[in-house]
Amino acid sequence: MRFPVVAKFLGLLTGVVTLWMLWPLGWALWDHTSDRDALALSMMSGFAASGALFFLGRRGQSSDMGLREAFAAVTLSWIAASAVGALPFWFAHAVPTYTDAFFETMSGFTTTGSSVLTDIEVVPRGLLFWRSLTHWLGGMGIIVLTLAVMPVLGMGGGQLFRAEVPGPVPEKLTPRVQQTALLLWGVYVFLSLAQTALMMAGGMNLFDALTHMFGTMATGGFSTYNSSVGHFSSPYLQWVIILFMFLAGANFTLHYLALTGHPGAFLKDPEFRFYALITLGCVVLTVSFLAGGGLYPHLEERVRAAAFQVVSILTTTGFATANYENWPYAAQFLLLLLMFVGGCAGSTGGAMKNVRLLVLCRHVGHELFLLLHPRAVVPIRLGHQALPPRLVSAIGAFFSLYIGALALCTLGVCALGVDILTALSGAAATLGNIGPGLGNVGPAENYAALPGGAKWIYSLAMLMGRLELFTVAVLLHPACWRK
Amino acid sequence: MRFPVVAKFLGLLTGVVTLWMLWPLGWALWDHTSDRDALALSMMSGFAASGALFFLGRRGQSSDMGLREAFAAVTLSWIAASAVGALPFWFAHAVPTYTDAFFETMSGFTTTGSSVLTDIEVVPRGLLFWRSLTHWLGGMGIIVLTLAVMPVLGMGGGQLFRAEVPGPVPEKLTPRVQQTALLLWGVYVFLSLAQTALMMAGGMNLFDALTHMFGTMATGGFSTYNSSVGHFSSPYLQWVIILFMFLAGANFTLHYLALTGHPGAFLKDPEFRFYALITLGCVVLTVSFLAGGGLYPHLEERVRAAAFQVVSILTTTGFATANYENWPYAAQFLLLLLMFVGGCAGSTGGAMKNVRLLVLCRHVGHELFLLLHPRAVVPIRLGHQALPPRLVSAIGAFFSLYIGALALCTLGVCALGVDILTALSGAAATLGNIGPGLGNVGPAENYAALPGGAKWIYSLAMLMGRLELFTVAVLLHPACWRK
Repeated sequence: MRFPVVAKFLGLLTGVVTLWMLWPLGWALWDHTSDRDALALSMMSGFAASGALFFLGRRGQSSDMGLREAFAAVTLSWIAASAVGALPFWFAHAVPTYTDAFFETMSGFTTTGSSVLTDIEVVPRGLLFWRSLTHWLGGMGIIVLTLAVMPVLGMGGGQLFRAEVPGPVPEKLTPRVQQTALLLWGVYVFLSLAQTALMMAGGMNLFDALTHMFGTMATGGFSTYNSSVGHFSSPYLQWVIILFMFLAGANFTLHYLALTGHPGAFLKDPEFRFYALITLGCVVLTVSFLAGGGLYPHLEERVRAAAFQVVSILTTTGFATANYENWPYAAQFLLLLLMFVGGCAGSTGGAMKNVRLLVLCRHVGHELFLLLHPRAVVPIRLGHQALPPRLVSAIGAFFSLYIGALALCTLGVCALGVDILTALSGAAATLGNIGPGLGNVGPAENYAALPGGAKWIYSLAMLMGRLELFTVAVLLHPACWRK
Repeated sequence: MRFPVVAKFLGLLTGVVTLWMLWPLGWALWDHTSDRDALALSMMSGFAASGALFFLGRRGQSSDMGLREAFAAVTLSWIAASAVGALPFWFAHAVPTYTDAFFETMSGFTTTGSSVLTDIEVVPRGLLFWRSLTHWLGGMGIIVLTLAVMPVLGMGGGQLFRAEVPGPVPEKLTPRVQQTALLLWGVYVFLSLAQTALMMAGGMNLFDALTHMFGTMATGGFSTYNSSVGHFSSPYLQWVIILFMFLAGANFTLHYLALTGHPGAFLKDPEFRFYALITLGCVVLTVSFLAGGGLYPHLEERVRAAAFQVVSILTTTGFATANYENWPYAAQFLLLLLMFVGGCAGSTGGAMKNVRLLVLCRHVGHELFLLLHPRAVVPIRLGHQALPPRLVSAIGAFFSLYIGALALCTLGVCALGVDILTALSGAAATLGNIGPGLGNVGPAENYAALPGGAKWIYSLAMLMGRLELFTVAVLLHPACWRK
């Protein structure tokens, strides 16, 4: 492991993250809110940290960036970004401890949306803006963002991009990684502007529209209100958010193709079809579960509540318009299951991703077929494509690792005295980058009351989930540290 | 699908199962208990059913028994055995409905041990003996038992044996299936006699010794007392049961080798080493979780309670000496995790089996290694053996199917109004053939209060778990019904 090049990269990244604090600082200055000083102090600290890392890594050469360094750089960059990004919350005393500030910021950058703020509405606007902005920055990847700046410093980004999107990678749009990153980022900005405009047209003010757009497009889930999106009773606004959550959970390559005149790409993509089918199926199921009780007497209301919560959890956003812990058990358990599905590959959504689930289903079907035809030699197909056995094997290992990480994380939190349903749903919600869980971390409560150790375990889970496990887990493999 | 041969096989099996009712009937006659008539009536009904099935299958030829017929015959044979085996409970009014009787019997034959009897101690002894005997018969497989009779009827058992033990198969001891079956059955009887003798030496009467031996050796878990093995306060008896549960969860091929002078086979077997390590590790962990509270002031008591519960759940037996729902959350969640591990391949234990878990771990490690060395070509190893990719792939699919079945089963039970922790732990406990779960199906309660639909769902889960999923799932594959 060659550390200087890693330090240099971290220095660059910390600097970029700190620079973005200018926006909430501007907001604080404009609004004359009390968090001005905390933000300014955080920026000074951030630049100091950035400088120190640059100094440590001054001997780092771009040619030093091998596979192992790339994995370390990606993992550490999210930790460094959260460490620096947590400073405003801590300096402004918005949270009682640095642990809380770190948790909140890791939750922001990883687009999780789990919160430790017990009363969001008393937090000054500059901080709230920064909190939501971390979602948007994390959404398409702090690193993808940085990729555009990297060539200037003579550092190649290919390894990093591969480390950050290790799953079933979206088709490359152009042969050059930097160009692909910029195109996807362009789509992201375009959709962000579109959503902001539509929400302002529905009566939201600029601040609310921007912060909730950040939470939607990044599939993050931080709101600026205690009752989350439930604060806005307008059905129009809720449907706009449902639509854009769904879009944010789809593969951005498909959006690019659609925007450049190929809307048919959506229907041709097996993963998108699967994603749309799961969404529709689970909305119908939830509507039927809700039919019994007297919670939603009107059908539109019931459909909207079901669609909002299903899409919010499935895309790993985590916004809420209802306290779904009052829903029937089956509806709650369905939401818990959806926490494992997540968005599509190449989206801002987290969790396992639809394409992996689809491949796992095909794999099981294939094994059953082989039991009946032991001598058959046929590949597993996805659309018109025969899947290479290596890919199927990697997806199988990913699933095992996901369930294993979930089990260990839950056990760790239980060992700190937390009950099973809270610990398990909290682990599913942080590992899948969703946000709220069930039990004591349900949509009406938050993570504030958990012991400090649990917050660190869940922070690690968010990081592992965001980097799709392998990138973090590989650092624990002895082969990564062998000479 | 050629049905006559299947019907003929079911007729044979039903007859054999009915014949075994002679033993509890003898007990009832000896004890002059009230269940005499119910048992006699059940035997008459059982023989009538057997005859009817034979008549239906009179045209079945041994050569008709292909792969598809074997899968159907195995699955249906467990259903038929439970349908007939349930009659004594129903005729004697020991349970309110036939659903309950069927659940109890399926739980017996599949060596699950989940019960719907609210007061076990008022049930007459003949019925209690039959209830425990179903465990012992199911333990080594009703079919393996029947294999010895099959050649007489000119039916080949090879396909059936493969369908019943589809997982990582124990090394064949002899080239002939019937002989292997008889050898393993011999080991089973030998260990059963040894345990009965040791327990009677500790002061148990013959009835208690036999019924609790049935529950132990089959990793079943039915007791004849409301407080399960906790009824016997003797540490000696509890340690004997711990030892024999552990032995019953090990590969019977290893026992055969040890009994014929090769005890070193235990240490050479990677699965057994893994099994022993998990047992030891989880006992230590549980002892440490229990150290905090004042539940077990004496160390021996604490170690014994932890060892008993860990071994009982890990081997999928399900006996209890304590209401572990009073234990700290971490200890409870650890037990929930152990419900997925199960015994070794070739044991009477259920759930996923240690060897599969071991292979999954190796698979994940292998994928991490490949991330760092993308061009390396190395196999996954287990002991000195390189595992064929086909086997690793099948185990991956098994894991996906297991988790998928768990999710669907839990969702189905939740839809009937059962809370999540009860439904989930109940599904884990029935699919893994353990017995008690957490919540309302914890060790101090039972399955009686669940809605009828949930009992049918869990009965199916027990069946699927006992036949290691694929055998049942393959019947749902369209290729099984194509001409």
